[in-house]
Formats: sequence, C-alpha cells, structure tokens
Amino acid sequence: MNFASDNTSGVAPQILAALGRANAGHVPSYGADPLTEAVEAEIRTIFEAPEARVFLVATGTAANALSCAILTDPWAAIFCHRNAHIEEDECGAPEFFTGGSKLVLVDGEHAKMAPEALRRAIAHTGRGGVHNVQRGMVSITNATEAGAVYTPDEVAQLSEIARDFHLPVHMDGARFANALVACDASPAEMTWRAGVDVLSFGGTKNGCMGVEAVVIFDPARAAEFELRRKRAGHLFSKHRFLAAQMASYLEGGLWLNLARHANAMAARLAEGLAATPGATLVHPPQANAVFTAFPRAAHIRAQAGGAQYYLWPFDQSLAGPPEEPLVARLVCSWATTEAEIDAFLALVRG
Amino acid sequence: MNFASDNTSGVAPQILAALGRANAGHVPSYGADPLTEAVEAEIRTIFEAPEARVFLVATGTAANALSCAILTDPWAAIFCHRNAHIEEDECGAPEFFTGGSKLVLVDGEHAKMAPEALRRAIAHTGRGGVHNVQRGMVSITNATEAGAVYTPDEVAQLSEIARDFHLPVHMDGARFANALVACDASPAEMTWRAGVDVLSFGGTKNGCMGVEAVVIFDPARAAEFELRRKRAGHLFSKHRFLAAQMASYLEGGLWLNLARHANAMAARLAEGLAATPGATLVHPPQANAVFTAFPRAAHIRAQAGGAQYYLWPFDQSLAGPPEEPLVARLVCSWATTEAEIDAFLALVRG
Amino acid sequence: MNFASDNTSGVAPQILAALGRANAGHVPSYGADPLTEAVEAEIRTIFEAPEARVFLVATGTAANALSCAILTDPWAAIFCHRNAHIEEDECGAPEFFTGGSKLVLVDGEHAKMAPEALRRAIAHTGRGGVHNVQRGMVSITNATEAGAVYTPDEVAQLSEIARDFHLPVHMDGARFANALVACDASPAEMTWRAGVDVLSFGGTKNGCMGVEAVVIFDPARAAEFELRRKRAGHLFSKHRFLAAQMASYLEGGLWLNLARHANAMAARLAEGLAATPGATLVHPPQANAVFTAFPRAAHIRAQAGGAQYYLWPFDQSLAGPPEEPLVARLVCSWATTEAEIDAFLALVRG
Amino acid sequence: MNFASDNTSGVAPQILAALGRANAGHVPSYGADPLTEAVEAEIRTIFEAPEARVFLVATGTAANALSCAILTDPWAAIFCHRNAHIEEDECGAPEFFTGGSKLVLVDGEHAKMAPEALRRAIAHTGRGGVHNVQRGMVSITNATEAGAVYTPDEVAQLSEIARDFHLPVHMDGARFANALVACDASPAEMTWRAGVDVLSFGGTKNGCMGVEAVVIFDPARAAEFELRRKRAGHLFSKHRFLAAQMASYLEGGLWLNLARHANAMAARLAEGLAATPGATLVHPPQANAVFTAFPRAAHIRAQAGGAQYYLWPFDQSLAGPPEEPLVARLVCSWATTEAEIDAFLALVRG
Repeated sequence: MNFASDNTSGVAPQILAALGRANAGHVPSYGADPLTEAVEAEIRTIFEAPEARVFLVATGTAANALSCAILTDPWAAIFCHRNAHIEEDECGAPEFFTGGSKLVLVDGEHAKMAPEALRRAIAHTGRGGVHNVQRGMVSITNATEAGAVYTPDEVAQLSEIARDFHLPVHMDGARFANALVACDASPAEMTWRAGVDVLSFGGTKNGCMGVEAVVIFDPARAAEFELRRKRAGHLFSKHRFLAAQMASYLEGGLWLNLARHANAMAARLAEGLAATPGATLVHPPQANAVFTAFPRAAHIRAQAGGAQYYLWPFDQSLAGPPEEPLVARLVCSWATTEAEIDAFLALVRG
Repeated sequence: MNFASDNTSGVAPQILAALGRANAGHVPSYGADPLTEAVEAEIRTIFEAPEARVFLVATGTAANALSCAILTDPWAAIFCHRNAHIEEDECGAPEFFTGGSKLVLVDGEHAKMAPEALRRAIAHTGRGGVHNVQRGMVSITNATEAGAVYTPDEVAQLSEIARDFHLPVHMDGARFANALVACDASPAEMTWRAGVDVLSFGGTKNGCMGVEAVVIFDPARAAEFELRRKRAGHLFSKHRFLAAQMASYLEGGLWLNLARHANAMAARLAEGLAATPGATLVHPPQANAVFTAFPRAAHIRAQAGGAQYYLWPFDQSLAGPPEEPLVARLVCSWATTEAEIDAFLALVRG
Repeated sequence: MNFASDNTSGVAPQILAALGRANAGHVPSYGADPLTEAVEAEIRTIFEAPEARVFLVATGTAANALSCAILTDPWAAIFCHRNAHIEEDECGAPEFFTGGSKLVLVDGEHAKMAPEALRRAIAHTGRGGVHNVQRGMVSITNATEAGAVYTPDEVAQLSEIARDFHLPVHMDGARFANALVACDASPAEMTWRAGVDVLSFGGTKNGCMGVEAVVIFDPARAAEFELRRKRAGHLFSKHRFLAAQMASYLEGGLWLNLARHANAMAARLAEGLAATPGATLVHPPQANAVFTAFPRAAHIRAQAGGAQYYLWPFDQSLAGPPEEPLVARLVCSWATTEAEIDAFLALVRG
Repeated sequence: MNFASDNTSGVAPQILAALGRANAGHVPSYGADPLTEAVEAEIRTIFEAPEARVFLVATGTAANALSCAILTDPWAAIFCHRNAHIEEDECGAPEFFTGGSKLVLVDGEHAKMAPEALRRAIAHTGRGGVHNVQRGMVSITNATEAGAVYTPDEVAQLSEIARDFHLPVHMDGARFANALVACDASPAEMTWRAGVDVLSFGGTKNGCMGVEAVVIFDPARAAEFELRRKRAGHLFSKHRFLAAQMASYLEGGLWLNLARHANAMAARLAEGLAATPGATLVHPPQANAVFTAFPRAAHIRAQAGGAQYYLWPFDQSLAGPPEEPLVARLVCSWATTEAEIDAFLALVRG
C-alpha cells in the first residue's frame, strides 16, 4: 500500500530486461550509438513530427530546466501555475539553468492555469520596458500536480494566449502518458498541434529507471540544447542505457499501457473513496493521483495498517480531533495493484 | 578491438544483476532508501572516514562540477592541469556550476601538474587584491588524462602547496580505481591522508552503468552539496538504482578487480607496443590508457582491420607519408580481452 | 511641473560644488583616497555603528542587488513586497547578482508587507526540504513604492519575523531620507536597532548625481561585497567623485533637509488635492510621492498645461469618459517648488 | 609626480564645467533626455557609422563585460591576450556577465596577441564537439596593457582570423584615444573598417569622471544590450550626467587633444629614460604608458623624492642589491605636466 509517489515504484520488467539486452559489446558513447538513433526516430514517428529533435536525460528536473533554458532569456519570465513542479519542487533549477529567469505565478483550480489569469499575468509583465523583467515563455504541467489533466483544447487555448504575446510554450510532461490516456488523445494532438514547442516527455515515473526525452518540435530551438546538456553534466557517457529504457518504454505501446493501468487504479481508488462516508475528493482524479479528505481517525487507522502516503500539505498533523478531515495525496503507478487499493479502502472505512 | 574509451564498454555482469535485485517492491525515493544508506556507510568504511558525507550522481561531469561549486567562490580560480577533464572535456561545466570561476591552467608532463608550476600559478593569481580573480581551489586528476598516475606522496606534495595558500583540494577520480591499484595504495592514503578534501569517486568508466560518488571528507563542506545537486537536476528519484550499482561495485572489492584487469590489459598492450619496431610510448602507461606513436601505415592497417581508437590529438590525418608516426590513445577497460590486444598488436605489426 | 520621478531632478548645488572641490590633483583610485575614508567614517558616526562597513556604488539597483547577493544563497528566497523595486523595476537584477534566487512576493497595503503575510510566505517556503527553494532573506523598501513609510517599530516587527526563521534583513532605502524625516527617527533607530543587517542608503533620488552607500552593520557579511562589487563593474576608478557627492550630501544634514523639503512639497500637494472636489488619495502620502485619483478631464487639462507625471498603472488611457477617475503618481523632490504645486493644483481644479 | 595610473588624475575642466551646464531643470531619466540622444548621434558621426547603436556606462569593466555578454554564449571562449584587462584586472567580470564563458589566453609581445598564436588558440578550442567549450569571440585591447598599440592593419589581421572562424570581434578601448592618435588613424579605420563589431570607447582614463560608450556597429547585436545593462545596475537614472561628460569629451576634438598630450608626456618620459644610463625600455612606449627598468637605488631615490608609480610586476622588492634593475610602470595622463616628468627624470638620474 505505497501511495507516496509514483517514483517509489521500481522498473517495469520489460524495461529492466531491455537494459540487459543493451549491454552486449562495445558501442560508441555519448549518444552516438544505434539504439539512441533508433529511439529518437521512434519518438519522431510517434509524435508525427519528422523534424523534431529528441534528447534524452535522466531526470525530470533536468528535462524541464534545460527546456526552459533554451526557450527564455535570463531577463525574462516563465509563466506557470503557482503549484507547478518547476516552481515548487526543483529547488530553483529553472532559475539556475536559465541564468536567473523569474517564475511568474498564475492561479487556477486543480493546478491548472486559468486562461484569463495567464493572460493577465503576461500582460502585467514587462509593461515598463527595460525596467521590468520581459515576457519569456509559458510552461504547462500535464498532468498537473493536483492530478488534473488539460485536454488538447485546453492546451491550445493557453498556447493561443502565449502566441498573442509571441511566447513559446513548454509542457512539463513528467506524467505525459497519464494525461494522454486520460484524454484519449494522440501525442501530436496534445503537443505541437496544440501549440507546444518543447515537451518534457517523462519515463521515470511511469515505469522507467531514469529517463526523460526532451522533444523539441522546432529544430531551430535545438541548437543550444546539446551544449547546455553537456555543460550541465546531463550527457551520459554510456548513453545506450538511457536509450534502451526509452525504446522498451515505447515498444508496443508499453508506455500507454502502464499509464492506463495507473490511471485505472486511481479511478478505482477514487470511486471507492466517493462511496466511503466521510471521504470527499479535493481535485478531479483525472490521471494517476487522488487528493481526498477523510477524518483524522481514518488516517491514523490507515497508517497504522501500513498505508504510505503524504498528507498534503505536509503540515497537517495526526494529532487533533478524530473527526476533523485531513487531506491526503494518493499516487498510483504502473505497479499499483487492485489488492492494495482494496486493502487501503478497507482501512479507511474501518 | 575497441580502445576508443573505457566508456564504450558495457556494465559488469555483477552490477547489472544488482539492478534486478534492487527492483523489488516500493522504496522511498530521492535517496531515503536503505540501500543508499548502506552504500554511504560502506564508502565511509572503505575510506576509513567515519565523518565523511557521500552523495551519488550519475555522471562524472556532475561529480566534478558540483564538487568545484562547493569548494570555490564564483570570483576565484580553480587550479588544474592544462589537460584536465574539467578544462577540456566538460564544456565549461565548472564555470556553470560555480557561477563563473576561472580555471587557471598549470603545466606538467603526462598531464600531471608540476609542483613548482602549481605554486607559481597560485602565487601569480590574486596578487592585485580586489582587481583579480582570487585563489580558490586545486583540482587533481588521478589517473590523469594521459594515463599517468600521481602516487599518494605526489598528491600530498600538491596538497601541501594548496595548504600554504589555504586552498582546498579536489580529486577528479573518474579513474580512481585505476590509480589506486597502480599505486597499491589504500583509498585513505590516496585521498584525505594526502590532503584531499573532496573526491569524485568514479564508477561509470570502470564497469558501472552510470554512477559516481562524491566523497566529502570534511562534513562541514557538505552543507550545500545536497541543495546544489537537486537544483542541478542531479538528484535521482529512483535513487536505489544508483545505490545498487555502487553497492555491487564495492562488494568484495569488485571495483579494484575490474581496475586491475583494465590496467593489466593496458600493460600488456604497452609491452607489446614497446616490443614493436617503430612504435614508441608517449606517456608512461601507469593506469588503463596507452598513448603510443607508430607509423601511419600501421594505423591504416589497424583501422582497416577493425581497431577502434582515437588519434590524439584528433587533427592528425590518415592521409600523408606512410612512415610518419601518428599518436594514438588506446584505452582499456574491465571488458578488454587479451585476444583483442593481441589482435591489435598483430595488425600494427603488419 | 515635473512630477514624473524624483530622478528627473538635477543635482543639489552644494553637491555639484563638492565635485569641483574634489577635482584637485592626483589621488589614489578605486576608493583608496582620503575622501572615501572620511565619508565611510562619517556614515558610521551618523548611524552610531562603529563596526559597520560602507561601500559606495552609483546606482540603486547595484546597491540592492549586491546587498541581496551577500545575504542569500542562489537556491534561496528573497521575501519582499509584490510591488518592491527589486521585484518590479530592476529587470531581474537580484536574480542576476545572486545567481538565481527566487523572489517570493508578499502582500500588504500601500506596498508595505503585512506582518502575517510575511510570516505565512516564509513558513510556506522550504517546507519540503531539498526539493524546495530555501528561506533566504527579507527585503523591506522604505519609503515604499506607494509613498508610504514603515516606522521603526514596523520595521522591527518584520525583522522579528525574519529572526524567527534566522533570516537576515535588507532595507532598500533608495528614499531612506524621506522615510527617516517622515518618522522623525534616527538612522540607527530605523536600521540596525530595528533589526536591519544591510541598508541601501540612497543619495541619487534626493539630490546627488549618482551615489548610494551600502551600509553593512555586521562586518562579517562584508567579506565578499568588495569582490562582488568589482566583479560587477561597480567599483569606480575615480572613486573620489562618489565620495565627494556623499560627503556633501551628509554635511550639515543636507540629506535630511533635502528630504524634508521633498516631503513637505508632497504634503502640500496632497493637502491641495484633498481639498479638490473629485480628487482622492489612493495611498497615505507619508514621504515624497502622492498617489491620487481625479477625473480624466482634469488629467487632460493638467497635461495640456505642461504637467508631467505617470498614470499609475501605465495602461490607463486618456481616451474615455471625462468624469472617470484615473490614478496618477506624483513625485516631489528636493527641487520641487511651491509654485509648481500650486500651478498643478490650479490645472486640476480647472 | 603621480604616474601610478591615468585614473589617479581628475576631470578635465571642460568636462567638469559641462556637468554644471547639464544640471539645469528637470529632464527625463534613464537616457531619454535630449543630451543623451545628441551624444549618441555625435558618436555615430565621428565613427562614420550611421547604423551603430551607442550605450553609455560609467566604468570600463561594465563596458567590457557587457560587450562580451552580447557577443558570446556562456559555453564559449573569449580569446584575448594573457595580460588583457578582462583577464587580469576585472575580478572575473566577463565570466560573471556572460554566465561562465572561458577566457582562452593568447601570447604575444607587448601584450599584443601574435596572429599565429591567436589562430592556434582558436583552432585548438572546440575541436571535440559538444565536449569542449565552443569558439566564442575575440577581444583586442588597444592600447594594450603594456603601452603598445595595434595599428588598424594589425587589428584587421586579427579580425580576419576571427572571421575565418565566424567569430565577432570586441575592442577594449579603455585607452582608445591614446591608440588612435598614436596611429594617426580615424575612428572608423581603427574599428569597423578593421573588422571590430563592438567597441568599449573609454572616457574615464582620459579626462572624464566616469563614462564609457559601448559602440555596437551591427545594430542587430544591440537587442539585448539594454536589458543586460539595466539588469546589471548600469543604467543611470540621472543619465544626463553621463551624456554631458561624453558630449564635452567629444566636443571640438577634446578627447584627441587630451590623448595627444598624455602620449606626448609619455614620449618625453621615454626619451629621457632612453638617455639615462642604466635605464632601459621594456615595451615600446607607443601610447601613454612607459615600462622601464632602472637600478633599485634609483627607484629608492625616486620614491623618496615623491614619485608615485607601481613596480610591475608588484612583487619586486625595494630591498636588495642597489644596482639590480627593477621594472616600473609609469602612466601619463591628460593632467601630467612636463615639469613632473623632468623632476622624475632628475630623481632617477640622481
């Protein structure tokens, strides 16, 4: 019963096996190997983007921060939701990689930027000429940190606002697969057709060991990515092992199947909670995370029974009136089982 | 016959197997897992350094650049050899991570800093007060980029010079194991007992998939490392897989055995070349790399026969007089076989 | 009738004359001259801070950004008001000088941080350990961008909150003199006795040509200031001319007299507006700036009559219903005359 | 007898007077005043460069570092002489402003880059693709730190090498006027006609209080200069006083006359030393500085008699054998008099 995060899970067996297959013999290092070439081509095919450039890195923070660095100037603003991962969970990586950009925070329910709030934030920034930080880029997290999902139409709506101000659009897709299957959309529909210029295409949280692909739809923007990646220590010498993970992840739609499973587990969990007296859902459980409030006594029971998850926000306390509701974040992954969910629900129900 | 680099090799089978074992179940992410704790303790034991702090990252450039960042100020100099990896092969990573330090280059044979050259370089820097870049730190690469090795006494000699100027000392040990077995020294003798404050302890080139440990002997210097690592995107979420590699690498002295093999292969290669008419050694082959000059005709023959390696420097040409000697860099690894070496020597000899 | 900013004014005649006196002969450059030494001593005396270190720079942005850089780490937050000059008017200078700190914005009326809002913002930041940007420092602008003033007690209240979290406190005193005379407080009462660690002590807006003093009350924090100043190109070679301005500014309390005049002119203007039908004050006019709303028709009349000032915010339009109120920012300076104010009031009244 | 530096001198009286004239009334701040517009136009005229963009800053380090920042990427190299001011006297400002570029040092006599040494340095850099720092820009100091001068032909020769590698060229002209009159060349001949893209056009050392103009011959490169200047705290609010200095400096060729005087004083000094037994010239005294070796006893006599100058390098000692020659740097300025020189020579001769 581990719902602490999708990254407490291990590696999907197919992907682990692929590492072993990739281990044979000597191959050129630093990405000049055939497996890397093949996986880049495969991503271009999957995204229907024959001109796209693809770069592999090992962490989501690297993917996001490097993407920001090629899309904005140091003296410009990155518009993102107040709860975006790049704002709250990367210890200032975007600021480091960009050379000091400013994250301008946009409000909206369920960690989704409200279109009018985005427009206001952009319009407000850089009005004073050289005295202000300039308008730089927009970053959309999909699925969001609250487990919600932007549809392709919603992404397009935000992108149009960005376009009105001539700003490029980044998508933090650490949970891209979960968002995609939630919308039953194609990769192209969710990204470049909806105005996304650069995608952080996550693998790690969804069954890989540690690999993310940065997909740059406009190849002109790729020019400096390679240099920034190397300079940041994110170019792997034994690069074949990043490629092997990603190749296996994509093969036969494994990535989508793993995400479907995680989303289905979250749906089962949400349904169970909805049917539990005293439990309420805080955000719409559209992807693989469920945010739910239920009484303190039930939390104590669940945790005593071995359930692992975070109270969200962290500073809620298990000490206090037993009936008071506390909010939990429960994250499902490719490795979550129906049995775990049913056991958890049983504990909550007491 | 791949001598292009030690990083064209794959992963030692023991280490690959360890990844599979580490895959069971859910564990806390970001290094809070038991395997990480155990491997940190093991490194403290191996280095006889109970107070040391240990951090895992996936690339050598990350290890080096983060180490520099905690040891020097942005307005200070990093003293290193003109051919150090941090100067020549990291696309300016030290400058990026430190916020703009200056690498001051020191000469010396076989990519080893000559002690008097180091002293002169330090003394020359920062003489003009606030107008100059200040004196920051010393970085020693062991084994060097030329395949030579500093003995513990030689390290101590450089460290004493650093101490005379109150400067901390970093060791880039991407090939630390190779240097250690070459000197038959203990980890402690080669590092903190010889005045080293921070070590980049390499695993990747010597049989791992992608892991390096930064060993910080003075724990006071560790305070900011964790934040810098996260901010640089180098904190892995599924951290257990870094730990698993490192734990297996250390277990039963595997790391030393792999390095002994690589060094022995380089010695066999060097002996064979020394006995080859027309071939000369350019640097003393003390670790796992051999730098050798032999006639262009023999290069053409070797490469036609399938040998892979770099001409060093790169800009030598295979077009030209057949008898003219060209210099090759030949790197052996844990995966190099006697048969490969003998086949290569046969090609060179024609 | 120029109320556009206090920096559209020229240099007070006493200060201009001091430049001429300072011009005699050769003197050591880069601040090693006797005039610089004397002015640093004078500032220590005025602030009753014998241990303080003083550094002169030529712009307020340099003073603020360098102050931030010595008080916070790159991975930490600067807590300031949403409308602080460092947030809105320096094109990201704090981010540049600190190496990428994040400004966390605090709300409050009249551009003054509300104490509870500050406490919440600090408490919210850095809760997640290494994943979050850490808590760094607090910056208080006095007088504020809205023409309001923090009393020493109010400063102390914010400083205590900072101390609860072990954070240093910076004061952006570009209009320090205006704040001081508004409160009839001593320099020490407004700064170190109220918990301020570093002050940007403004001269430029209040009658100098271009000089600000950074006063560092805890000399241990001064260690790196000198190096950062030089590295940022803010150490003047002919430093005596910065010192001469500041010395004249301080001599005989000129700085306080100039500020008293500017504040008195703002008070006269505010009183006149308060007595003008249709005009209202938007912020309390406690220093040298008046924010006032009055009908569009009166704006058109005033500007046609030669009055210069900014509509605040900028994006208000002179086209529209004549009775609709628009907000103006009107800044008085040492050079503002009663006649200008009376002429302006006459225009507004029509 | 102050030969310590040209920046120990004061401000030429014409320029000081211009500050007073500029002080009348209110004018727009931040460079939107008519005087600034006029001086920018005047510089375009003087340089026969109608498309050039001009920006004023107050220090040479700001001019140089901002120029580098718009000409090179953080991951690229700045090729300059080993003794260039940007390498030795700016505390790493180029590294700070560029975000961590690497200065690659080129040798050559008299602090002039030897063309073949420049070509070798460029060719050597960036050969290894993404692993190396890339080739960025060339910076030429004229007059050099050794008091020598590049002729327009010599500048063109270096620029051609830069062009062969598609690199832009910066000229550090802190002593541009001295170089120009030494060559009897026009501003255009010495700069854009010789391949210079951006010039740091110095005023401070040659009679101004603190002003340098950055002249950007290709206006496309100006796009980010304004933002970088503001972000670095180098945009003056009372900008008219920078403009007033520069306008007066240019008026009637004052700048050239001041430099002619300084150069003539250096020539007189050099001639006197050449005629002094035991004194030798170390570099050709082509501009306003003389590097000369003469016996220690004469140094002791000169300094006891009130002569001020630096031993160069600093670490020569006045203690030692009286006949041993020590090297002095003697800098003349617009303010140096024949009487000072003759008095100095008399002291040296004893």
